[in-house]
Amino acid sequence: MPSTPVSDLQAPRGTRDFYPEEMARHRRLLDAWRRVSLRNGFEEVDGPIFETLDLYKVKSGDGIVSELFSFRRDGGSTDYALRAEFTPTLARMVAKRANGLPKPIKWFATPNFCRAERPQRGRLREFWQWNVDFLGEAGPSADAEVVFVLVDLLRELGVREGQVQVRISHRAVVAQVLQRLGVPAERLTEAFELLDSRSKLEPGVFAERAAGLGLDPPKVQRLDEVCRRRFAAGDLGHLARALGMDAPPDDLVGLDAQLVAFGIAGWCAYDLGVVRGLAYYTGTVFEAFETAGVERALAGGGRYDRLIETFGGPAMPAVGFGMGDVVLANLLRDKKLEPEHAGDGPDVFIVPLADADPAAVTGWVARLRSGGLHARTTYKPTRNTGKLLKEATGARARFALLVGVDSLELKNLATGEQQAIADEDVASRLR
Amino acid sequence: MPSTPVSDLQAPRGTRDFYPEEMARHRRLLDAWRRVSLRNGFEEVDGPIFETLDLYKVKSGDGIVSELFSFRRDGGSTDYALRAEFTPTLARMVAKRANGLPKPIKWFATPNFCRAERPQRGRLREFWQWNVDFLGEAGPSADAEVVFVLVDLLRELGVREGQVQVRISHRAVVAQVLQRLGVPAERLTEAFELLDSRSKLEPGVFAERAAGLGLDPPKVQRLDEVCRRRFAAGDLGHLARALGMDAPPDDLVGLDAQLVAFGIAGWCAYDLGVVRGLAYYTGTVFEAFETAGVERALAGGGRYDRLIETFGGPAMPAVGFGMGDVVLANLLRDKKLEPEHAGDGPDVFIVPLADADPAAVTGWVARLRSGGLHARTTYKPTRNTGKLLKEATGARARFALLVGVDSLELKNLATGEQQAIADEDVASRLR
Repeated sequence: MPSTPVSDLQAPRGTRDFYPEEMARHRRLLDAWRRVSLRNGFEEVDGPIFETLDLYKVKSGDGIVSELFSFRRDGGSTDYALRAEFTPTLARMVAKRANGLPKPIKWFATPNFCRAERPQRGRLREFWQWNVDFLGEAGPSADAEVVFVLVDLLRELGVREGQVQVRISHRAVVAQVLQRLGVPAERLTEAFELLDSRSKLEPGVFAERAAGLGLDPPKVQRLDEVCRRRFAAGDLGHLARALGMDAPPDDLVGLDAQLVAFGIAGWCAYDLGVVRGLAYYTGTVFEAFETAGVERALAGGGRYDRLIETFGGPAMPAVGFGMGDVVLANLLRDKKLEPEHAGDGPDVFIVPLADADPAAVTGWVARLRSGGLHARTTYKPTRNTGKLLKEATGARARFALLVGVDSLELKNLATGEQQAIADEDVASRLR
Repeated sequence: MPSTPVSDLQAPRGTRDFYPEEMARHRRLLDAWRRVSLRNGFEEVDGPIFETLDLYKVKSGDGIVSELFSFRRDGGSTDYALRAEFTPTLARMVAKRANGLPKPIKWFATPNFCRAERPQRGRLREFWQWNVDFLGEAGPSADAEVVFVLVDLLRELGVREGQVQVRISHRAVVAQVLQRLGVPAERLTEAFELLDSRSKLEPGVFAERAAGLGLDPPKVQRLDEVCRRRFAAGDLGHLARALGMDAPPDDLVGLDAQLVAFGIAGWCAYDLGVVRGLAYYTGTVFEAFETAGVERALAGGGRYDRLIETFGGPAMPAVGFGMGDVVLANLLRDKKLEPEHAGDGPDVFIVPLADADPAAVTGWVARLRSGGLHARTTYKPTRNTGKLLKEATGARARFALLVGVDSLELKNLATGEQQAIADEDVASRLR
C-alpha cells in the first residue's frame, strides 16, 4: 500500500497539473504551433513517449544518460528512457523509410518530453516542445523558410518585431573568422567543440585550450569582441567589414537574400555568439531570444546535414528547430499577450422557464450538441429566469434559449435583443 | 555507446511511430474527442506523464505495480510510474482544490498512457485515452449526459445506431437480483468482487465461492442466464418482468427516463453481464461494444461516488468513462469510416511562371501564410507550368496562383476557371 498519506499526494516535482484555466492557455500554444505548421506546409508526426536508451546514445553519447529518466520493464533486459528530445525519434523514423518518403520531408511535432534535471525558471522536468524539421533540401531557402515558420508563430501569438530577435550564426562564417585568427583548417572541429563548451569552462581552462589551437589571449579577446556584436540581417556589407572580410561567405549571402525574400530580415540579426551546437550543426545555427530580457532561448535550431546518416539512413540535408512551451508561456505572460479568456464560451445556454418540461430542456441540449453547437444548461434546481440569465452571461454564452411549455425565445446576450423563434430555426440561427 | 547497431533501432514493442498518414488519422480522433467534449460543456485538463507510484496504489493497491512502467531518478528515493490511467490524477487534482472549484466539475482529457502489458490486438503499451468525468452531481441525469457524450462522439465519427451498443448495468439492480437469489445484504460487496473476478477464475473455484455466498449451482445458472440477456432501454417493464421484480429500482427508473430524454435509448441496452468494476463503481456501470464484433470494449465507465474521498477529498458524487484510441481506430477501419484523405490540402499552390522572380514567389508564400492561409509552392527547379499545376493538384490545393514577372492569375483547381487577379484581392478571394 502507499507509503505517502493520501493528503500529501502531489504532482512530481518539475511537472504540472493543468486545471481548466492553465490547460486553456496551454492548448492555445499547442493549437498555434499546429495551425502555423500546417499553413506552412508541414505535416504532423509523433513517436513513442519512451524510446530505447540506445537511441539517445547514438546522437549524444553516454553523457546523455544522467539527464534521462530511464527504466527497465520488470524481468526485461532492454533499457528505455522517457523521450527527452524529438531529433533521435525523427532521425530513426526518417532513416527507416528514407527511400519511400516523398521529398522534401516537412514534418512537425508538438509532444511532451522529460528530463531528469533540476527544475528552475524556464526549465521543467516535463515540458512540451514544438519541433519543425525540413529534410531533403540543401539550399538556404530551406533555412530561411524554417526561420520564417518560427517568426510566423511569434506573430500569430501577437509578438511584434523588436520584442524577439532570431540570432543567427553560420559555421562557415565562424570557420572563416577562426582561420583568419590562425586556427588551422584541420583543427576547426576542435575549435567548434571548444566554443560549444565555452560557458561550462573556467576562463583559465578555456584560454589554455584556445592557446593550444593557436589562439593567444589577444586573439581570444578579438574573438570575444566579435561574438558580442550583432549585425542586421539584409546588410551583409556591415558584417563583412566588421569581420575584416573581403566578401561574406557564399552560404551567408544566399541565406541573407532568402531572409529578405521571406520578409523577416527585421526579426533577424547575425550573432557569432550563438555557438551552442556548432560542432553538431553543419551550417546555419540560430536561437530566438526576447530582446529585452534575460530569459533562456525561446527556440534554437540549425542545419544538421549529417544526422540521418548517423542513424543509418542515406545522406540527407536537414534543417530544423525546437521551441519549448515554458519559456514561450513566460514571454506571453510578461508581454501581456495572453487573452483574457483562454477558451470560448458556449454558443447557447438553455434557460428552462417556470413551466418547462425538464425532458424538453434535455432534448434541446441533446439536439443542439448533436448539431455541432456548444450548448449548456443549468444544473441548479432554480427556475428563476433572472438568475439563469445571469448564469448564462457568467458562462459567456452568446445566446440564451428560453424554453417554456408552449413558448420558445432566443435572446442575444450581447445586444439584449430577444424574440420568439420556431423550433426548426434555432440551430441555423445559432450558426 | 549504444549496444544496438543503428540499423536495428526501432520503436519499443507496443508503441507506435506516427508517420504523417497515421498521424492525420490519429489527430482526427483526438480532434473529435476534444470537439465533442467542448460542445458538451466539458473543460480540458491534463496532468503529468508520470506520477508517484504511490498514487496508483491508492486506487488499485499493490497489485497494480506489475502492470506499470516504474522507475526512480538516479540517486533519488521516490518511485515513479508512467501514467497508466487518468482517474488517480483526476482524483488527486479534484481532492486538492475541491472547495475552490465551481460545481459541477465537468472535465475531459485526451492524454497518452503506458502499461507494461503484453501487446495484442486492441491493446498496446502506449495508447491514448479520452476521459470524460462529471463530478458534483448525484442524479441520473449526469449518468445519462455522460453516456450521451459517448454516443455524440460515435455519431460525430459516422458510427450509426445499431453498429455500437452501450451496455448498461446498475449496482442496485444486480444487488436486487443477488438478494432475490438469497445473498444476504451484508455479503453483497463480496458478491460484487466475486462477479468482477469471474472471467479470471476457474469455473470450479467460482462455483465454490458462489456456494459460500448462498448461491448453489442452480442459482449460479439462473444468474448466468440473467447475465446473458439484454433488455432495450426505454422499456423497463420488460426487464422487471424478466428478472421477476414487481418494480424496477428507482435508480434505474430515473436513468431510463434520462436516456429517453437525451434521445439515446436506441443506442443503449441493459445488460447485467457488464460486471467489470461493480465493486469499484457505486451505481451505473457501462461499456460500449461493436454490436457485431468480438473486439474489446470501445469504452467503459460508470458512477464512482466514493473515489474523491479515497484520495483525501470531500464526499463528491462522480460519473465518467474512458475510451481508448486503439479499439476505436479498429472500429473505424472495419466499418470503413475513415476519410480518404485524413488532412486538408493547401488553400493555394503558388506556380512560378517561366519569367517569375524567385524572390517574388517567396514573398507571396510568406504573405499568404502570415495571413492565415495554407500556401505552398514547388521545391523543384522546373518552370514547366503544366508540371507545376499537376503538382498543385497532387497536393490537393484548392487554387493555384500563377505568378509571372508582370502577371498574376488565380486558377480554381476544382472548376478549372482561371482569371487575372489584383495583388490586393488574392488573400480575400482565397478566404
